[in-house]
Amino acid sequence: MKMRLKAVSFIVLVHLLLISLASGESRHELNFPDILGYKTLKCDFHMHTVFSDGLVWPTVRVDEAWRDGLDVISITDHIEYHPHKQDIPTNHNRPYELVAAKAKEKNILLIKGAEITRDTPPGHFNAIFVTDIPALDTKDFNDAIRIAWEQGGFVFWNHPGWKPEAKGWLDIHTKLYENKWLRGIEVVNGNTYYPEAHQWCLEKNLTMLGNSDIHDPITGYEIYEDPELTHRPVTLVFAKEKTAEALKEAMLDGRTAIWHKNQLIGREKYLDAIFRASVKVSNPYYRQKDTIWCEIKNNSCMDIQMEKAGTERAEKLVLPANSTMLLKTKAKGEAGEVKLSYVVKNFLIAPDKGLPVELIIPLQ
Amino acid sequence: MKMRLKAVSFIVLVHLLLISLASGESRHELNFPDILGYKTLKCDFHMHTVFSDGLVWPTVRVDEAWRDGLDVISITDHIEYHPHKQDIPTNHNRPYELVAAKAKEKNILLIKGAEITRDTPPGHFNAIFVTDIPALDTKDFNDAIRIAWEQGGFVFWNHPGWKPEAKGWLDIHTKLYENKWLRGIEVVNGNTYYPEAHQWCLEKNLTMLGNSDIHDPITGYEIYEDPELTHRPVTLVFAKEKTAEALKEAMLDGRTAIWHKNQLIGREKYLDAIFRASVKVSNPYYRQKDTIWCEIKNNSCMDIQMEKAGTERAEKLVLPANSTMLLKTKAKGEAGEVKLSYVVKNFLIAPDKGLPVELIIPLQ
Amino acid sequence: MKMRLKAVSFIVLVHLLLISLASGESRHELNFPDILGYKTLKCDFHMHTVFSDGLVWPTVRVDEAWRDGLDVISITDHIEYHPHKQDIPTNHNRPYELVAAKAKEKNILLIKGAEITRDTPPGHFNAIFVTDIPALDTKDFNDAIRIAWEQGGFVFWNHPGWKPEAKGWLDIHTKLYENKWLRGIEVVNGNTYYPEAHQWCLEKNLTMLGNSDIHDPITGYEIYEDPELTHRPVTLVFAKEKTAEALKEAMLDGRTAIWHKNQLIGREKYLDAIFRASVKVSNPYYRQKDTIWCEIKNNSCMDIQMEKAGTERAEKLVLPANSTMLLKTKAKGEAGEVKLSYVVKNFLIAPDKGLPVELIIPLQ
Amino acid sequence: MKMRLKAVSFIVLVHLLLISLASGESRHELNFPDILGYKTLKCDFHMHTVFSDGLVWPTVRVDEAWRDGLDVISITDHIEYHPHKQDIPTNHNRPYELVAAKAKEKNILLIKGAEITRDTPPGHFNAIFVTDIPALDTKDFNDAIRIAWEQGGFVFWNHPGWKPEAKGWLDIHTKLYENKWLRGIEVVNGNTYYPEAHQWCLEKNLTMLGNSDIHDPITGYEIYEDPELTHRPVTLVFAKEKTAEALKEAMLDGRTAIWHKNQLIGREKYLDAIFRASVKVSNPYYRQKDTIWCEIKNNSCMDIQMEKAGTERAEKLVLPANSTMLLKTKAKGEAGEVKLSYVVKNFLIAPDKGLPVELIIPLQ
Repeated sequence: MKMRLKAVSFIVLVHLLLISLASGESRHELNFPDILGYKTLKCDFHMHTVFSDGLVWPTVRVDEAWRDGLDVISITDHIEYHPHKQDIPTNHNRPYELVAAKAKEKNILLIKGAEITRDTPPGHFNAIFVTDIPALDTKDFNDAIRIAWEQGGFVFWNHPGWKPEAKGWLDIHTKLYENKWLRGIEVVNGNTYYPEAHQWCLEKNLTMLGNSDIHDPITGYEIYEDPELTHRPVTLVFAKEKTAEALKEAMLDGRTAIWHKNQLIGREKYLDAIFRASVKVSNPYYRQKDTIWCEIKNNSCMDIQMEKAGTERAEKLVLPANSTMLLKTKAKGEAGEVKLSYVVKNFLIAPDKGLPVELIIPLQ
Repeated sequence: MKMRLKAVSFIVLVHLLLISLASGESRHELNFPDILGYKTLKCDFHMHTVFSDGLVWPTVRVDEAWRDGLDVISITDHIEYHPHKQDIPTNHNRPYELVAAKAKEKNILLIKGAEITRDTPPGHFNAIFVTDIPALDTKDFNDAIRIAWEQGGFVFWNHPGWKPEAKGWLDIHTKLYENKWLRGIEVVNGNTYYPEAHQWCLEKNLTMLGNSDIHDPITGYEIYEDPELTHRPVTLVFAKEKTAEALKEAMLDGRTAIWHKNQLIGREKYLDAIFRASVKVSNPYYRQKDTIWCEIKNNSCMDIQMEKAGTERAEKLVLPANSTMLLKTKAKGEAGEVKLSYVVKNFLIAPDKGLPVELIIPLQ
Repeated sequence: MKMRLKAVSFIVLVHLLLISLASGESRHELNFPDILGYKTLKCDFHMHTVFSDGLVWPTVRVDEAWRDGLDVISITDHIEYHPHKQDIPTNHNRPYELVAAKAKEKNILLIKGAEITRDTPPGHFNAIFVTDIPALDTKDFNDAIRIAWEQGGFVFWNHPGWKPEAKGWLDIHTKLYENKWLRGIEVVNGNTYYPEAHQWCLEKNLTMLGNSDIHDPITGYEIYEDPELTHRPVTLVFAKEKTAEALKEAMLDGRTAIWHKNQLIGREKYLDAIFRASVKVSNPYYRQKDTIWCEIKNNSCMDIQMEKAGTERAEKLVLPANSTMLLKTKAKGEAGEVKLSYVVKNFLIAPDKGLPVELIIPLQ
Repeated sequence: MKMRLKAVSFIVLVHLLLISLASGESRHELNFPDILGYKTLKCDFHMHTVFSDGLVWPTVRVDEAWRDGLDVISITDHIEYHPHKQDIPTNHNRPYELVAAKAKEKNILLIKGAEITRDTPPGHFNAIFVTDIPALDTKDFNDAIRIAWEQGGFVFWNHPGWKPEAKGWLDIHTKLYENKWLRGIEVVNGNTYYPEAHQWCLEKNLTMLGNSDIHDPITGYEIYEDPELTHRPVTLVFAKEKTAEALKEAMLDGRTAIWHKNQLIGREKYLDAIFRASVKVSNPYYRQKDTIWCEIKNNSCMDIQMEKAGTERAEKLVLPANSTMLLKTKAKGEAGEVKLSYVVKNFLIAPDKGLPVELIIPLQ
């Protein structure tokens, strides 16, 4: 509960000291592993401030991102919708300007972005990595998307299942897609998962995103609205390094996954790599005749929910986050290793389809 | 994680339905009892928004207040300090205007207020129950306070221990006090308790207040800065009813107490009444010769920390919030009842002085 | 982490003092309301100790019961199954003897009981309110049940869906039922709900019970096995007073309900009374043309999950435990009051059937 | 809430399946780092069962240890004190026998031990690594200790500050010490820290231990008795490997530390190594003129509480467990690196003396 005015004078004192804590808050690290030689960046590419219809000053978004363990954000205020304009005159580039220094101080990579908010259909689209937001304030919808693309922007379709009466993939989306203007879709927006969008991304090789679209302050109180929602949706991007260039290259290449509620959503290749980096089976530490015991550790920040594959009676194996479980199994006659086939129910490689995995227990 | 734009369209749908939940969030009730025939109103009279140096849109303060179980708030943006004025032109009455309808919908009593922010000394002062904030934007400090008083305002001194080099009760404060312009002091501001201010209120019959002075969104993350700070400071006002008039009458009469961290701070009369309404000792439910057993319930939302009075070896009795403890005691030869004298260490009736109480166990 | 030996010597000291805290632990009260003129007793009638196949000394069951907010327990060690007998010779009455004094000190009503553990079918049965447990150690199963009945015992069938190959209501159960020897069934045992048993109780007018059948210490760690299991199952008994006699009268009359996970299971009459005593709708506190706002409070310790009745599109209304929500509704043309019909999804009056309720908002 | 009887039959089913989860519970890993080439074993060498004055069956101690993240335990029932002997005849070796198989299945290293419980003075002593407990049941106290030593036992003095009237280091302790029979002291027992014992260990080169001395089941409810007690005390032993031999070698060499409440207690060498392995300062990620920003991560499971060394005004730096903080400091004119001197207040290298450390920020 800092007082800004006090803070101003306090800065004078602080300069006399050698050191100060840049922030009294701590960052809760998200323990998703780096995979396949890439750095796993935790990103949220959709959020609002008082400069469109959000309820916080732009710098709050950086504080929240740091606290929540994110590496990258984009503030994407609506271009066409400014309910506070009576008090805050329109200034498209202003949120980025106000936040740039604080983002550097907090080690958050800030990507310039905006939400192109026209009729539905075609729906709303975020343009990120753009350089000049006022230029997107065009008469024609197609022009706005094209200019974003010409600026080097990455455009994705937001909450594609919203507005029931007009949803679905239409000709307009085909045109955007064929022009390579449309590169991704929000498979998750806020507390909603869109299975159709998941399928479209798989079929059309579009990049999957999961973003918060947050307007309120992020308080942790959202769980009352949806008890499964204990964290904001996060887009994991598997990038060569933490720079804007490397991030864009990874997104154009579709190297993402989405952490939503207690699910991971993405292409099999990346989910499989995260599973292998997160779950470790020990050598047997005890043997009684044909029975062996070993430990199985889950180092990730997610509970991992597995079911025995190919059995009539579903046998469940839940590995809580940051915990160890014990496995007891038969090893009669097996040579070299025991293989156990499971499906990870909360790692979705397609709508309703969990990730198949094998747990391998070496027998010396 | 609501989307405002979605919300706008959603309202159309909602009007077709008979009912809607006005808010998806729930209110956490603060179980402080009504006492002495008065209603116990939970209040916060000091907070900021983007209209001075705060970081949230004014309506957020109503949502937070409702969620935190408050009955009354006053938004008190600085009159003289507007760091966001490049983006938000000065408009002293605007926060109140923007919030008035939402406050009614959420059943929060909204009191018009402002912070008069001049040099230190004399320090900062809040004026609440005022009617015209721009009129307080005067050249002379004394004029501002006088005009607030003439408008029917209640003026209190904020965070009186701030700025070490110039703190203390000075002639200027005596003048404000003798004019009856100054009616109260913040004994608690944010995470700080001011024992000197506590003493001044007792000696000079000034009203004690405890307020958040919050600038950031209230998130629950503040506990990392101070692990004891699990809720914002709250001023309890013992009023005849929940109206602005009754509230002011109670405040002018000094009928307040402060809930700060796990402490209650206030005059003995009110703390004693809260203790009696919160802690109940049952009749003995079991007796073995001279030994009796009874239950002691704490219905309040505070842990109550007691120590045996008048013994060399401090004997502690902690009653957790909303819980029951068992008491076992000797009742040899006592007629009618057993009296046990304690001091409630976290009910402060003066600096460093706990509330003396007696637990009475009836013996039929 | 008390040391018993230390405790022994400490008692000497304590007798010199006037008072001592009978227990350093606190009791978490379960806020189920008294209904229909009865006292709502929170009971668990099925648990084990080291005297059969449990893992705790009998007194632990009293400490746990007090801490968990229970009023009544019965320790029901197996008569026929004593895996620890090499170390602890069989002594059927011993658990009750060891616990009786502590139960009185902690104000827990202790009911003498045992589990009659024969083959399946017919399954296992608890006999409570019995007076002589060794007498139940008979050759013939029917004799054991008959003798329990002759002792004034109340016999109920435990975990009736257990052992898949031999489950169901068989001739043997019909015989027990027709003799009035069988008076109730565990509709809930541990973490399992048996819908068939629920239906049998409704059809045959048998008393519904929900018990823990706990063998381990109760630690709160059980939630890892089943994340919905945040408390043990509790049988609520609606009794004239807290005595063994009144309890038995209520159980013979079928006046029970079961608190299991976040569900309440029982006859409509009792669930409806609990709902009415727990949920309160305020008068409208604000009106704008045809729209009114009011508060809806849930004073119980359960989240209450409601759905709008008779609408195609399910409209959910979740009232978190001990919280307040806001309701906004149309009141156009209605005279006197607005009635809103809901189904309480987690108050089960029959398998898969929620409790129908009406929320009534008075319009002056 | 498992049913033992059910479990017995269930095992038959399980043997038909390839795999089963050996335990439905998960283990909460304690993230203390390995240091100085040693493995950091988490140990508790003092606990009781129903075979002396404890309240649980011996196997419960293994389940608790695994769940709490321990590697090693010793069950140390009193030799001379058996309050349950009317029901459980004395059998000194029995707890170890009953637990040995389960300990292997759960990968817990089980050390045979017992508590020699004579008068005070000299007090109580644990003998661990012994082979024949009945042989310690001697008439003479000195004989018991000597025989433990002859069996290869490691003897330590328990809760040395207990019994105020007879505490202190007496001739009898000097004799035990000079014979090399006494090798360690409990600096922490249950919720109590003994600063004198801490000092004795430093002066006399005795091994420091911190143990639970638990009699009740471990439930997590103990926090009501002492809110700072969120975990049992743990003795960290820095051993070459996880075997009984390596453990004893490490203990004879004094390579231990104690985790108690939110403190670490031990010799400077080991605490310093744990600090260095737990706290990591990043290179500066941002620079503005003379000001640099870097991250400081705390990978341990403890909050680390630091204060600036050598400054009049205490400047605090709290690093919450498993979190990251930001540091902002001046780097004017420094070459190579910035050094910041702190004292870690909750790493006690002597009574009331925190660990001095330096944070080093490399400047390329």
